[in-house]
Amino acid sequence: MNLHVEPLNRAAFAPFGDVIEADPAQASFAINGGTSQRFHDLAHLDPGDGRLIMSIFRAQPRQLPLAITMLERHPQGSQAFMPLGGALFLVVVAPPGDRIEPAAIRAFLAHGRQGVNFAPGVWHHPLLALHGESDFLVIDRDDPNDNCDERRLERPLWLHLDVSQVGAAA
Amino acid sequence: MNLHVEPLNRAAFAPFGDVIEADPAQASFAINGGTSQRFHDLAHLDPGDGRLIMSIFRAQPRQLPLAITMLERHPQGSQAFMPLGGALFLVVVAPPGDRIEPAAIRAFLAHGRQGVNFAPGVWHHPLLALHGESDFLVIDRDDPNDNCDERRLERPLWLHLDVSQVGAAA
Repeated sequence: MNLHVEPLNRAAFAPFGDVIEADPAQASFAINGGTSQRFHDLAHLDPGDGRLIMSIFRAQPRQLPLAITMLERHPQGSQAFMPLGGALFLVVVAPPGDRIEPAAIRAFLAHGRQGVNFAPGVWHHPLLALHGESDFLVIDRDDPNDNCDERRLERPLWLHLDVSQVGAAA
Repeated sequence: MNLHVEPLNRAAFAPFGDVIEADPAQASFAINGGTSQRFHDLAHLDPGDGRLIMSIFRAQPRQLPLAITMLERHPQGSQAFMPLGGALFLVVVAPPGDRIEPAAIRAFLAHGRQGVNFAPGVWHHPLLALHGESDFLVIDRDDPNDNCDERRLERPLWLHLDVSQVGAAA
C-alpha cells in the first residue's frame, strides 16, 4: 500500500503537534529596535518530568521509494526537528494510542523552511532527509532511554514522491 | 575604540555560554539504524522559573562598521540562537554582573553552522545578521517582559570586519 504525501501545514498537522515556521499569516512583532521580527512561541515544547535538551542530528538521505516498516514514539516528552540548511524532509506520523491503525498513518513533505514538533506519544518515523547529508536542530527530553517505544507495522507502507510535489515544495 | 572580532569556538566562548555546532571532535553517536548521527545535548538550556519556548527571529542585516552602543541581558534564563540558512552573524558579549567593563566586551564571528546559547545574565548585543534577511531559531524563556535589562555603554565600541575574517569563516 502507498502512503499519500501531503504538503505540511499547521491545520493538517495539528493532531500530531506543531509546524515550526515563520508564517507571515500568523502574529509576529518587531523587536531589537525594528531590526528583527519575532515569530513567537511556535511550538508546545513539553519536557514531561525531564528537562529539554538541544542536539543536532546529521541525517543521511533516504532513497525513494522507501518502505515504512516501523514507527516510534516518545511518551514522556515532545520532540522538535528544524532543518538547518533548508533541506526538504518527509514526516510520517500516526495518532497517539496503543494501536497504530494503518489507515491513520499520514505523510507530509516539509519544504525546508518548516520544522515539526511531535507532541508526546505521537507515533512517527525516524528522520527522513531526502537530499544529501542534512543537519537538523532537535529539541527533546533527556533522557531518551526510558522514552522511546518502537512498533513494527504489520505490512510495510510505501513512500513515493513525484517531481511535481518536490517542485511545489521547493 | 574598536572591538576585535574573534572566531567563535567553544573554549573562547565558555565564559558566556555554549557554542551550538555538530563538531566532529566532540562525542556523537549513531541513531535511527545508522542513518543519523546524534550530537547530543549541546547547550545548557535554562528556563529559570519559567518555561522554554521556541521562536523564529527574522533579522535584517546590519551595515558595518557598526557602533555598539548598548547591551542587554536576560537574568532569568538562557537564550539560544541558531541560524537556519547558514548565515554568518556577529556575537557581542560581556560577562554577567551589574557593571559592564568596556575592556571585557568581546566580539565573535559565527560561521553559519554555529549557534550560541547565552547563559542567564550574560550581557549581549541584540542579533547581528550580516548578509540579507536571516532567520534564526531561538530558544528562550517565556515571558520576556520581566527578563530583559538594557544597558547603554558609556562610549560606543566599533565593529569592523575585514575580508580575510569573512573568508576564513565562510
